[in-house]
Amino acid sequence: MGLSERIDKAVTDAVTIGQGGVAPRQLSAALTYATTPGGARIRPTILTSVAMACGDDQPQITDAAAAALELIHCASLVHDDLPCFDDAATRRGKPSVHRAYGEPLAVLTGDSLIVLAFEVLAKVAPLDPMRSAQLVLTLARRTGMPGGICAGQGWESEPEIDLRAYHRSKTGALFIAATQMGAISAGQEPEEWEELGARIGEAFQVADDLRDALYDSQTLGKPVGQDDLHGRPNAVAELGVDGAIRRLTDILSGAISSIPSCPGEAKLAHMVRMQAERLTPVITPATRRA
Amino acid sequence: MGLSERIDKAVTDAVTIGQGGVAPRQLSAALTYATTPGGARIRPTILTSVAMACGDDQPQITDAAAAALELIHCASLVHDDLPCFDDAATRRGKPSVHRAYGEPLAVLTGDSLIVLAFEVLAKVAPLDPMRSAQLVLTLARRTGMPGGICAGQGWESEPEIDLRAYHRSKTGALFIAATQMGAISAGQEPEEWEELGARIGEAFQVADDLRDALYDSQTLGKPVGQDDLHGRPNAVAELGVDGAIRRLTDILSGAISSIPSCPGEAKLAHMVRMQAERLTPVITPATRRA
Repeated sequence: MGLSERIDKAVTDAVTIGQGGVAPRQLSAALTYATTPGGARIRPTILTSVAMACGDDQPQITDAAAAALELIHCASLVHDDLPCFDDAATRRGKPSVHRAYGEPLAVLTGDSLIVLAFEVLAKVAPLDPMRSAQLVLTLARRTGMPGGICAGQGWESEPEIDLRAYHRSKTGALFIAATQMGAISAGQEPEEWEELGARIGEAFQVADDLRDALYDSQTLGKPVGQDDLHGRPNAVAELGVDGAIRRLTDILSGAISSIPSCPGEAKLAHMVRMQAERLTPVITPATRRA
Repeated sequence: MGLSERIDKAVTDAVTIGQGGVAPRQLSAALTYATTPGGARIRPTILTSVAMACGDDQPQITDAAAAALELIHCASLVHDDLPCFDDAATRRGKPSVHRAYGEPLAVLTGDSLIVLAFEVLAKVAPLDPMRSAQLVLTLARRTGMPGGICAGQGWESEPEIDLRAYHRSKTGALFIAATQMGAISAGQEPEEWEELGARIGEAFQVADDLRDALYDSQTLGKPVGQDDLHGRPNAVAELGVDGAIRRLTDILSGAISSIPSCPGEAKLAHMVRMQAERLTPVITPATRRA
């Protein structure tokens, strides 16, 4: 089984836990709708790659961690798309969850996916209770307040934004969770893995800004120009397109050199390079919107 | 320190964890707004009473469990009050969170409180990692899908409602969590504590139906007649006021006789009786809304 099949199976198995027995059918269906087909599954791919670089001695724990992280990411997309935030009509090329199922079920889908993420982590506790608890703690800190993606979204309601805290929590948090949870899954200490996650997060933010500035909504499968529209800070506005691309390259080099010493270090560096190529937008005159 | 002070302190300490360091100020304030001053804190009171009846040998774990359960309850109130659900203007005698802070921060407040609940449980893992994991698992099952309060709310979007599953998940789930998490906190197996929680939950549902039918919104501090308005099933509509009161008394007797054998059994029975008196509405002609 390849890496992407392994991750898809972990996510599907996790969602199934939330659908057993007598359950309301539409909310049940919405959990699947919100999580499949996946996007790039970039966060669980990083998590699993780090775990493998560290030996992956408890693959069931790694799979639970990868699934939990992806569920949180999917939950954040569902809630961010709500009318009171981005009011996005589409996501991943299909109607957003609130457009397909209505707003009440979209709120509940996000809530249920958040809860399910922690349930999945607790279920592997019999294999190693302290790893399970460390995973819950790390995921919670990177998801909630004061330093997780909830905080990141919360900054957008402030009259004055602390830009560093904003980017770190809004986009960086789940990438830091990815590298740290990968290390924890394989029995390693998470601290020295924070920098890699933070740098990948910065790279992703710049790449997202570039995509948002350069691509049309059909290519992206979601509305473009959202940052402009909502007055959010943006690397392209700050540095220009060429400057933002240079910045992206610099950050990714830094990410690779920050990889802690581990058995699978070379392979992990290769994975980061591959993700980097995926992130770097292909700039052609056709993709520039004036 | 009395029981209610102990619980208030546990909740306040838990909320503080979500507010440390550099955090968006309004969301931070909303976490406090949504959790204080508390209502009756009935769920954590039951949880702590059960733990004490079982010896309460790890009071820090009990406090974490009580706080986590109350955070989930508060989160559910914030999300249930949103315009797409009950659209409630008031809660506990003050503006609902979305009226006070706006809808985006209300969604994020609920999300953050859910995440914080699991963080609080993971933080006590060094004291006893398996109790911590069991608490995460039990709280998640009673909060999410397919059997928790998210499922309960999800049933309201179905064309046909499974009434037993609806009541069990909508109101019962967090009372079952209360008794089971109390037992787990004190190192006991949770299974035999399910019935007590389920019965208290049924009693609470009937009492809530009675209050909803009989009281005005000023007495309740929240809008009344919501069940009628939203077409939700209701014990008063089914049995009449006197029938519903008889049913409440029966359920509470059943609850008391279901208490498992434990060192503090008598004291726990007394607590359930006291909660019962609190629940049973005082019926006078003035409180009847003809």
